[in-house]
Amino acid sequence: MPVSRIPLTADELERMNAWWRAANYLSVGQIYLRDNPLLKTPLSRSDIKPRLLGHWGTTPGLNFIYVHMNRAIRQHDLNMIFIAGPGHGGPAVVANTWLEGSYSELYPEVTADEEGMRRLFRQFSVPGGVPSHASPHTPGSIHEGGELGYALFHAYGAVFDNRYLIACCVVGDGEAETGPLATAWHSNKFLNPQTDGAVLPILHLNGYKIANPTILARISHDELESLFIGYGYQPIFVEGEDPETMHCLMAAAVDTAVADIQSIQRKAREGDVLTRPRWPLIILRSPKGWTGPQKVDGKKSEGSWRSHQVPLAAMDRPEHVQLLADWMASYRPSELFDDAGWLRPGIAALAPVGERRMGANPHANGGALLRDLRLPDFRDYAVDVPTPGGSAAEATRTLGAFLRDVMRHNPDNFRVFGPDETASNRLDALFDATNRSWMAERLDDDDHLAPDGRVMEMLSEHACQGWLEGYLLSGRHGLFSCYEAFIHIVDSMFNQHAKWLKMCDEIPWRRPIASLNILLTSHVWRQDHNGFSHQDPGFIDHVVNKKADVIRVYLPPDANTLLCVADRCLQSRNLVNVIVAGKQPEWQWLAMDAAVKHAEVGIGRWEWACNDRPGEADVVLASAGDVPTLEMLAAIDLLHQLAPELKIRYVNVVDLMTLQPQEEHPHGLSDAEFNTLFTADKPIIFAYHGYPWLIHRLTYRRANPNLHVRGYTEEGTTTTPFDMVVLNNLDRFHLVIDVAKRVPQLQAKAARIKQAMYDRLKRHTRHILEHGEDMPEIQGWQWPGRSPE
Amino acid sequence: MPVSRIPLTADELERMNAWWRAANYLSVGQIYLRDNPLLKTPLSRSDIKPRLLGHWGTTPGLNFIYVHMNRAIRQHDLNMIFIAGPGHGGPAVVANTWLEGSYSELYPEVTADEEGMRRLFRQFSVPGGVPSHASPHTPGSIHEGGELGYALFHAYGAVFDNRYLIACCVVGDGEAETGPLATAWHSNKFLNPQTDGAVLPILHLNGYKIANPTILARISHDELESLFIGYGYQPIFVEGEDPETMHCLMAAAVDTAVADIQSIQRKAREGDVLTRPRWPLIILRSPKGWTGPQKVDGKKSEGSWRSHQVPLAAMDRPEHVQLLADWMASYRPSELFDDAGWLRPGIAALAPVGERRMGANPHANGGALLRDLRLPDFRDYAVDVPTPGGSAAEATRTLGAFLRDVMRHNPDNFRVFGPDETASNRLDALFDATNRSWMAERLDDDDHLAPDGRVMEMLSEHACQGWLEGYLLSGRHGLFSCYEAFIHIVDSMFNQHAKWLKMCDEIPWRRPIASLNILLTSHVWRQDHNGFSHQDPGFIDHVVNKKADVIRVYLPPDANTLLCVADRCLQSRNLVNVIVAGKQPEWQWLAMDAAVKHAEVGIGRWEWACNDRPGEADVVLASAGDVPTLEMLAAIDLLHQLAPELKIRYVNVVDLMTLQPQEEHPHGLSDAEFNTLFTADKPIIFAYHGYPWLIHRLTYRRANPNLHVRGYTEEGTTTTPFDMVVLNNLDRFHLVIDVAKRVPQLQAKAARIKQAMYDRLKRHTRHILEHGEDMPEIQGWQWPGRSPE
Repeated sequence: MPVSRIPLTADELERMNAWWRAANYLSVGQIYLRDNPLLKTPLSRSDIKPRLLGHWGTTPGLNFIYVHMNRAIRQHDLNMIFIAGPGHGGPAVVANTWLEGSYSELYPEVTADEEGMRRLFRQFSVPGGVPSHASPHTPGSIHEGGELGYALFHAYGAVFDNRYLIACCVVGDGEAETGPLATAWHSNKFLNPQTDGAVLPILHLNGYKIANPTILARISHDELESLFIGYGYQPIFVEGEDPETMHCLMAAAVDTAVADIQSIQRKAREGDVLTRPRWPLIILRSPKGWTGPQKVDGKKSEGSWRSHQVPLAAMDRPEHVQLLADWMASYRPSELFDDAGWLRPGIAALAPVGERRMGANPHANGGALLRDLRLPDFRDYAVDVPTPGGSAAEATRTLGAFLRDVMRHNPDNFRVFGPDETASNRLDALFDATNRSWMAERLDDDDHLAPDGRVMEMLSEHACQGWLEGYLLSGRHGLFSCYEAFIHIVDSMFNQHAKWLKMCDEIPWRRPIASLNILLTSHVWRQDHNGFSHQDPGFIDHVVNKKADVIRVYLPPDANTLLCVADRCLQSRNLVNVIVAGKQPEWQWLAMDAAVKHAEVGIGRWEWACNDRPGEADVVLASAGDVPTLEMLAAIDLLHQLAPELKIRYVNVVDLMTLQPQEEHPHGLSDAEFNTLFTADKPIIFAYHGYPWLIHRLTYRRANPNLHVRGYTEEGTTTTPFDMVVLNNLDRFHLVIDVAKRVPQLQAKAARIKQAMYDRLKRHTRHILEHGEDMPEIQGWQWPGRSPE
Repeated sequence: MPVSRIPLTADELERMNAWWRAANYLSVGQIYLRDNPLLKTPLSRSDIKPRLLGHWGTTPGLNFIYVHMNRAIRQHDLNMIFIAGPGHGGPAVVANTWLEGSYSELYPEVTADEEGMRRLFRQFSVPGGVPSHASPHTPGSIHEGGELGYALFHAYGAVFDNRYLIACCVVGDGEAETGPLATAWHSNKFLNPQTDGAVLPILHLNGYKIANPTILARISHDELESLFIGYGYQPIFVEGEDPETMHCLMAAAVDTAVADIQSIQRKAREGDVLTRPRWPLIILRSPKGWTGPQKVDGKKSEGSWRSHQVPLAAMDRPEHVQLLADWMASYRPSELFDDAGWLRPGIAALAPVGERRMGANPHANGGALLRDLRLPDFRDYAVDVPTPGGSAAEATRTLGAFLRDVMRHNPDNFRVFGPDETASNRLDALFDATNRSWMAERLDDDDHLAPDGRVMEMLSEHACQGWLEGYLLSGRHGLFSCYEAFIHIVDSMFNQHAKWLKMCDEIPWRRPIASLNILLTSHVWRQDHNGFSHQDPGFIDHVVNKKADVIRVYLPPDANTLLCVADRCLQSRNLVNVIVAGKQPEWQWLAMDAAVKHAEVGIGRWEWACNDRPGEADVVLASAGDVPTLEMLAAIDLLHQLAPELKIRYVNVVDLMTLQPQEEHPHGLSDAEFNTLFTADKPIIFAYHGYPWLIHRLTYRRANPNLHVRGYTEEGTTTTPFDMVVLNNLDRFHLVIDVAKRVPQLQAKAARIKQAMYDRLKRHTRHILEHGEDMPEIQGWQWPGRSPE
């Protein structure tokens, strides 16, 4: 029984199928050919690449979806971007953008004719050529198709605050097995149909991963439908393999989905009542390697895991060459391209026009749309610091007030993300300006939940990171605040984003986007009730392995410095900025003017804590991070009492990258500057926020070998703030002992000083055992404010 | 209308509720009290801890579930462990295990009387005391409740191959929002009712996280039911707040679930046909902070996010002290405990007996059940290496044959895990011994899928890591093979497991478990078709930040060394072993005897590549990793030709931890040993598999400052194997240039040597651009096999 062609006319169906054949032809060509692109002569071994490195399996499905999105864009005048979740989907997007013309506009050497087609084929998967996954090089892409798991987050991130945008997001059934993707479906609880755009997810069940079937392809139709209804979607199924039937089913499904989206948005935008809608979702079940060889060497290929990669690989065998020739001929290239290699006009007319083409949509080249943030003057939020250590404040609470006004001044292109921790991290001033985003059910007693909230909280670091990436890549601004230990959950997402940025720096048409700002708080030193599981300062170590051009790490020692750093980060472009700052009340060191100067240089002497002038320092004491700075200053206070004759220089590090050599990082100090600050030979005792080895790794090329670093050595439990530093030998008493051990000028006194310190440590241990809290001398310590002699 | 008490008798209901009250009482006591545990005198400020650090919100729900599991264990003679997913669930498990007696058996100082209760209260969340999260210290726990996301994976991992075991796994609705947990529900597609045990998941909807509602508590009942039917479960709802009603509903739900589990298992074990069953799941909706204060300071507490932490915090206010006294009195402690603090016998009788108590179940102290693997002699799988470089092999394929026989010899306590990559990683010999585990639909053309398969493949690194952790923690063995770059997906899971192992080393009753073995293959240097997104060797950097006692890193240079290392890892206990080994055909260097010796020491000279004897070396060349070793040996070959007079020492590093000082790592070389090998002052050129800075970080304390390291510097794309090393300056030509630059003895020739090498590099670039593959001199290079002069 013939399926009704509705909604396609015979001509439309014919031309759409021709486009699909053309895209499939170009995909096969990219994988296999280095010459003879139009098969004008019989295919020979020498036309075929020596190394076959492509993946065919997912490609025809992506091509099928692309042509249907093109039709929908034209039919319904949609503003749409395309996100190719499946791995190795690169050739499909490249093929379609070449067909629609956007590719040749960005890469003029790849012309829209036979010679261009030859180049298109040749450049794929050859050394330094076009990657197999969708990547920054791919027109219209905001999503690297390599790692899998984040496509849907990127899609939702892109449409937040883009009310007229639709992100068509293809999710492979392999990717659908990952954790991040499995929870990403819940993003629909955070999408506001009044002010946000829409995501059209297309779950593509081609049934197989590399060697295995996929879970979602092997559960019953009822279970699958139930799952997505449970996720809050209305699934529309398109299942089969006959191209003509499938085109008609798909066109009808897309029309339904678009109508549903438009109806949801109209109701929300015109009506009074805003409830969470049931958004449409298309489930496309089609054969893996669709239209590829049915059998290869007697084994099933199309519709099997065997078509995942290169279905025909043995090109030294003439029968495989013949199979390839037959396969390519099956698309009837002469009907698709004229003799000069141009796509025939009737087919080309299917493409949308100008920026409506998905390869040319500016939302997928976010920097092109980026507007600078309107930033209030961060100095207006300064904490009053009459003298160093003369007042106390919570750094993140101070930042919160600044962020509140950033939010107020940028009501449509700035969001803050965090896993249920914005208030816990003391950024709650934000809730004076906005709410938490929430489209699920609300109750009277809820705290600052609203559909138009601009603080995005879901208990998933993957969601926070993924949404923010999508939001930035489409040209907006944001900040992710996270418990320090649990940022490791997104280590791998960070990798991919850092790699994306590094590649973008090499692609002229990619315009710079706002930096990814990560605020790490609730940090390792203040996990009094969470204990060991919440202690890990190693994200910094992870970050500094990436290209210096794209990463920055800041450890502001107090609230005013944090404000300076945050302001700088929010203005920056194409970076990942990591800021580590505590949320607990701490002594404040720098008045705003001093903080501005200090943050600008990123490293420097704090004169009021030095007594090495005139003359030479006997020892250089340094610190990076708020808690290490507190302990180092307390140690200096003790040293002033115990050995007033000792000439101490104190150096504070805000910008960790200053420690690296200038050749390694743009912020690195020159060797001369480094030696001026740290001396070439005096002992340096360095108190560092994180794992101490990192400081050695950053400074191993520096001249002064006399560096001793204290930091977190993976000792911790549920305990008091001071006991935590004691457990890791980072406390003031151990630091004084370190000085006594290493500074020759103290030799005569060293034994006495050490003994005094060990006595204090014993007293500490006794005290916390007896009282469950830190000694009064610790809790009550304050910088004496003495000036240097 | 009174709810039928069925299945509980009035007496049973009364006693179960009493147990629950007792557990709640003990939980509140842990959070608040340091004295007066039985409230024998009116509560005063001095009875209350100075710092209140607990979390009440999740606790009463966990207590409720625990007593119902106790009843089910007794009623149905179940062998059950308890996994507390929710964060800060520690006090609940501690309270219940104290009530059942298992706590005092492991911690005899915490007696089952008033004095013990005082200790129980005092020790909680004080410095160095009992953590707030379930942890290794918690009897019956295999799951740290800190990070969230992995509870269900651990539960499934524990019941694989434990056909009589049930893991009751409480999943908090906060945790349920994480990605890993969202896909963990699909674990039911891998559970074989014939040979595995069962998981009884209890989704605990208490509605709130820290400050937010939870997604699953704010979707409709129908959606929620649909979601879990879609996940393949049969949800049983228990919803309400009246304790009596809830006890009856819960008891009935648990009886239904247990009956379903038993019926599923009976059918599968007696019948012929094995299809995927619909396993039961309980959805418990109860108020957050259930039975806590209804209102505090006029604001709703019970049933609100405000009860997440400490509902009454202002203990300097007498009315809060009174509220606490009233709250604790509401449990009527005198009905629960006698004057001496002993639990009254009628209530105590509810506990299961001996090892049936969940705090004493040996499956939760896996080392107690651990059997050594029956290992074939790894030497039998040796690759023939007639002379160094005299044969080629794929290292992981060689390992695969060994693993195949490990699998055969250990058919019930060894599994291999990987995200769809076992075959791609060339371990497919395993499929001669077993299949891939698969309980979803199977088709004729599937490749090695079976319900009783012992290779666990799901496209989720979280699943692989989480299942394996559960499998190990319950006393079995395994190996996880993973693409090197994507192991970062589980960075944070690794952190938690490493922390768990570190803590276990300090807990005498925790018996050693099998090590977590991670094989990283498809590594950074061989991503010819995947490109930049698949290149990240930084997991090693991440690993070495954890305690030296629990981590090991091996970089075997060839197949025979890999066999030695794998054998050692499979025999080890309480470690995380990371092995990096390629899967591509490579030259082989060591015959088995030599490999055994080399792997045992972990580092050493390869005499056949040295010509420094007699006398002194002019330069030390070293490498770690298969590709760097190939390049370094090729560089040595070039140097022998270009400068035969140069005295070269070559050192190969298998065990990366040998580079650290002895004081830092148990495998570390002494300084004397290090200097003997590397000299104290000669130039060292080190070719390393990963980020080069790591070698500096490991060796910064060593005497020889003259160390120059090459490694991956985050340069890569889709390209040839040799071009990849060239992009990162790790190739033979750059290594020769490094030698020429740094070795004084070569000064006269240096310019000429460098020029020759730069010419070769230019030729390389031209060649790959023209031919798309590496030069014949690279592809055909072979170690000349010359002996040292």
